[in-house]
Amino acid sequence: MEDYHKPDQQTLQALKDTANRLRISSIKATTAAGSGHPTSCCSAAEIMSVLFFHTMKYKVQDPRNASNDRFVLSKRQAFTDVATGSLGQGLGAACGMAYTGKFFDRASYRVYCLLGDGELSEGSVWEAMAFAGFYKLDNLVAIFDVNRLGQSDPAPLQHHVEIYQKRCEAFGWHAIIVDGHSVEELCKAFGQAKHQPTAIIAKTFKGKGISGVEDKESWHGKPLPKNMAEQVILEIDEKIQNKKKLSPALPEEDAPVVNIRNIKMPSPPSYKVGEKWATRKAYGVALAKLGHANDRVIALDGDTKNSTFSELFKKDHPSRYIECYIAEQNMVSIAVGCATRDRTVAFASTFATFFTRAFDQIRMAAISESNINLCGSHCGVSIGEDGPSQMGLEDLSMFRAVPNATVFYPGDAVATEKAVEIAANTKGICFIRTSRPENPVIYNNNEDFHIGQAKVVLKSKDDQVTVIGAGVTLHEALSAAEQLRKEKIFIRVIDPFTIKPLDKKTILENARATKGRIITVEDHYHEGGIGEAVCAAVVGEPGITVNRLAVSHVPRSGKSAELLKMFGIDKDAIVQAVKVAVSKSRNAE
Amino acid sequence: MEDYHKPDQQTLQALKDTANRLRISSIKATTAAGSGHPTSCCSAAEIMSVLFFHTMKYKVQDPRNASNDRFVLSKRQAFTDVATGSLGQGLGAACGMAYTGKFFDRASYRVYCLLGDGELSEGSVWEAMAFAGFYKLDNLVAIFDVNRLGQSDPAPLQHHVEIYQKRCEAFGWHAIIVDGHSVEELCKAFGQAKHQPTAIIAKTFKGKGISGVEDKESWHGKPLPKNMAEQVILEIDEKIQNKKKLSPALPEEDAPVVNIRNIKMPSPPSYKVGEKWATRKAYGVALAKLGHANDRVIALDGDTKNSTFSELFKKDHPSRYIECYIAEQNMVSIAVGCATRDRTVAFASTFATFFTRAFDQIRMAAISESNINLCGSHCGVSIGEDGPSQMGLEDLSMFRAVPNATVFYPGDAVATEKAVEIAANTKGICFIRTSRPENPVIYNNNEDFHIGQAKVVLKSKDDQVTVIGAGVTLHEALSAAEQLRKEKIFIRVIDPFTIKPLDKKTILENARATKGRIITVEDHYHEGGIGEAVCAAVVGEPGITVNRLAVSHVPRSGKSAELLKMFGIDKDAIVQAVKVAVSKSRNAE
Repeated sequence: MEDYHKPDQQTLQALKDTANRLRISSIKATTAAGSGHPTSCCSAAEIMSVLFFHTMKYKVQDPRNASNDRFVLSKRQAFTDVATGSLGQGLGAACGMAYTGKFFDRASYRVYCLLGDGELSEGSVWEAMAFAGFYKLDNLVAIFDVNRLGQSDPAPLQHHVEIYQKRCEAFGWHAIIVDGHSVEELCKAFGQAKHQPTAIIAKTFKGKGISGVEDKESWHGKPLPKNMAEQVILEIDEKIQNKKKLSPALPEEDAPVVNIRNIKMPSPPSYKVGEKWATRKAYGVALAKLGHANDRVIALDGDTKNSTFSELFKKDHPSRYIECYIAEQNMVSIAVGCATRDRTVAFASTFATFFTRAFDQIRMAAISESNINLCGSHCGVSIGEDGPSQMGLEDLSMFRAVPNATVFYPGDAVATEKAVEIAANTKGICFIRTSRPENPVIYNNNEDFHIGQAKVVLKSKDDQVTVIGAGVTLHEALSAAEQLRKEKIFIRVIDPFTIKPLDKKTILENARATKGRIITVEDHYHEGGIGEAVCAAVVGEPGITVNRLAVSHVPRSGKSAELLKMFGIDKDAIVQAVKVAVSKSRNAE
Repeated sequence: MEDYHKPDQQTLQALKDTANRLRISSIKATTAAGSGHPTSCCSAAEIMSVLFFHTMKYKVQDPRNASNDRFVLSKRQAFTDVATGSLGQGLGAACGMAYTGKFFDRASYRVYCLLGDGELSEGSVWEAMAFAGFYKLDNLVAIFDVNRLGQSDPAPLQHHVEIYQKRCEAFGWHAIIVDGHSVEELCKAFGQAKHQPTAIIAKTFKGKGISGVEDKESWHGKPLPKNMAEQVILEIDEKIQNKKKLSPALPEEDAPVVNIRNIKMPSPPSYKVGEKWATRKAYGVALAKLGHANDRVIALDGDTKNSTFSELFKKDHPSRYIECYIAEQNMVSIAVGCATRDRTVAFASTFATFFTRAFDQIRMAAISESNINLCGSHCGVSIGEDGPSQMGLEDLSMFRAVPNATVFYPGDAVATEKAVEIAANTKGICFIRTSRPENPVIYNNNEDFHIGQAKVVLKSKDDQVTVIGAGVTLHEALSAAEQLRKEKIFIRVIDPFTIKPLDKKTILENARATKGRIITVEDHYHEGGIGEAVCAAVVGEPGITVNRLAVSHVPRSGKSAELLKMFGIDKDAIVQAVKVAVSKSRNAE
């Protein structure tokens, strides 16, 4: 039992008292509110008491202090650093905090995560278990509150704690089984330091201490009726002796002071107009550059770094790259954990469509008001041969539906570099959508970009239609304009830069200047994409029409150009749509 | 080695020949296409040869025969029953097939699933591992092709096959380590029958048989250059002896004939107009009823059956309910597997927002042209106290972006029962969005419902605004109409029934009859919801205006009515919006 000092009897009794006080307040609060989870709180009462009044080191007056030990409550409740409530996400965030503490802060704070047994069915938990085992996060302690009962039924493994132990060990953890209602066993278990992550598998009873409810089914998430609560509170109160007051130990204040505000690129972009660059590659170049501006910029990827080009960041800053392997849910949770308490500026990348794997984590990150940056490469049919499973065609819809998210869709390498710099300094979830094909640089290196500010890329007084394209379709629109010009048909071309927020003002002004005609063209499904965003922005404006070119059904594999043509979002399709728009109103005249 | 008969030397040689022929064709095909994964194919060549020409029982001429053994290729390729390519999803589908074979078909066919080692980092794999272990799916064999190399780096466990074995055993599997290039060891391993699922952990080399490429990094997903391919093909060809032709064993044809076409409710709904029912409860009632109409209707849930009311189905049909525990990704994959080859009509339910956990699985199900029905309860802020993590506010956006999906949003108990019946007979992904609050029944039991056909719930010749509501907001709209009537302001109220497809015709006709004024009100975020769908449908139509009432930011916990008011989607907000619309144009006149 290295470095374990058994607490004296008074302390143990005081920890028991604290546990029972927690029981009482959880019963009072939930009965008063007429909603809540008193039975789950009671199963964890001793665990919480020992953690907060014996094991953890923190400043009560300064709960967010960078040097404090961290605590993540993954069971159905919300806690300060990350919101939980969608089960199975807490441990991933805890892993991000522990990785940050061990490898970036190199500080002595530890991270504790309390999980329920029901949520151990979530694969995301095992992604995190594998991650912690692989990186030997010895500053991480997971506590499994095995109270046997789920919401609608017993959890699959019930009280077979030895199976949980086998699973933890197979994933590289040190696993200890304890009686979760024995403050003594808990103190002892928490006192064991190891060179690998530690799992405390606590056998507990749901509703422990509530006579008639303890270990009974169908009490999940139900407060006690008032009279019953009063009776129970009396019973529990009798056990409290109040002989000693406890206060937590103070942390070593060894977490470095960091500043992640106002991060500026060391130099402007250095591209030449006309040069061909894939925006996915420009992302890697930009992120590597940004890493030189601030040493708290980190990158994460899920075994796609040679496709997303986050490998360029790894090349320059190997110690600040986190390989998350093929586990996208966990990658997002790790980023959320790394970003807590403003310790790092995290950029996580994978194929745009594989972020659908982590939609729930992204949704919860927004609820947590987390500041993370996500880059999705390989959007749309333009990726070509790899086929529909690899094509991001719903990512704009997904990220637009995330509250306070900023959705960047840069049109060239310069815009991509600006997007990376802006994202690093923007609160909330930032998503950057990058493409596989190489397209010419169209912006000068000194071009100024802002969130919610579209660029009018092509303009003449004779323009008859406003075409809105982004990424590859912006370039298709420019090619279409060139061809149409030969036939004396002129179009205006707009690059929205950010899809959310969308620059309604610029779009409307230019649409009005082109007889109200708008054509949107996007490498994405119709639903929730650029076209719908534009429709919602301009609907009801007199004389405005919108024709939406987008991918209308599940694609197939093929050459990039073939697919753009097949799905009617290439140069020819735009030319065609423009001619129809123009002729229509000619006939109308 | 019970029931294992060692194949003769000629057979073994023929299996080796077949493996090498597979190598050659994979190299030829990918070099010709200039794209593909020849190295991954080569690591699995012997596995495929033994499976298809020694172990599996199937009719070559009738690959989709119900009695055939199933094969799921979870590594980055597509196969007949389910599309893969988004890693880590194959095993869940295989579990659904195996569960169906064992418990519903009670047939002797077996299910084989080939996984790559890279995808074993996906939590969804471990959800499926736990599921198979828990239900003792002894007709399921998973083959781990441990070729050590991922896309951008070695996989985390490299060739430590013993760790994979520990993990499999901890999850309740029988696990055997084999040399994945030894047809003899493979034949032997596949010959071992067990009373639990079996994992064959095959140590292989990526690019096996390709000199200069075998076990080398940075060859992932790259075809060989033409001249190199020719050389390699010659080398491999020399090893082929061609002494014996192999053909697979035939299956026992013991899978029952099933008919899941044209499933009709045994009786019409039996609700009374005005009675208060939550649509989530009506879902359970309807599903239980449908289960009496056809014994291939099954239900799945993720430990929320007492909230989604799928427990009512379980009560009537316990043997056809699958408890998937808290593992939503796997639940969707199980449903996909159960639905393959038209063996079952699967309805999977959880809270609407928790389907975000399975967005990637749902996306892939659409690519697989899978026919599954998903019911999401507890949509919107109207669930009340449980807080934002439990509120479905992006589910419409998510499901609308799924190709060929049908999105039902029933307004009362009768509409819900109809939605369930229609979904059971509709191809593709069907999503039914249900609500927690109880609202009055508004439709007669004989009311006829159709996909893409909206209902005009309230109508008079004096209507000045068309209000489109769904679920709880449909009832708020009706209350608003009642209040406005007292002030001699009349509104038309429309219930879309399906949000995708949307009944543009009915919406436009009624909007035109109410001075072009549309107000949409939804318990969902603005993006990708009902309002945007309506905007996209009516944009450009002269004189049509749309005012969208929806949830504009992350909500909090509170009473249902409080939250509807706080987010401006309740009766009062609608009354207010109607008055503004009316007065506006008055001023204009």
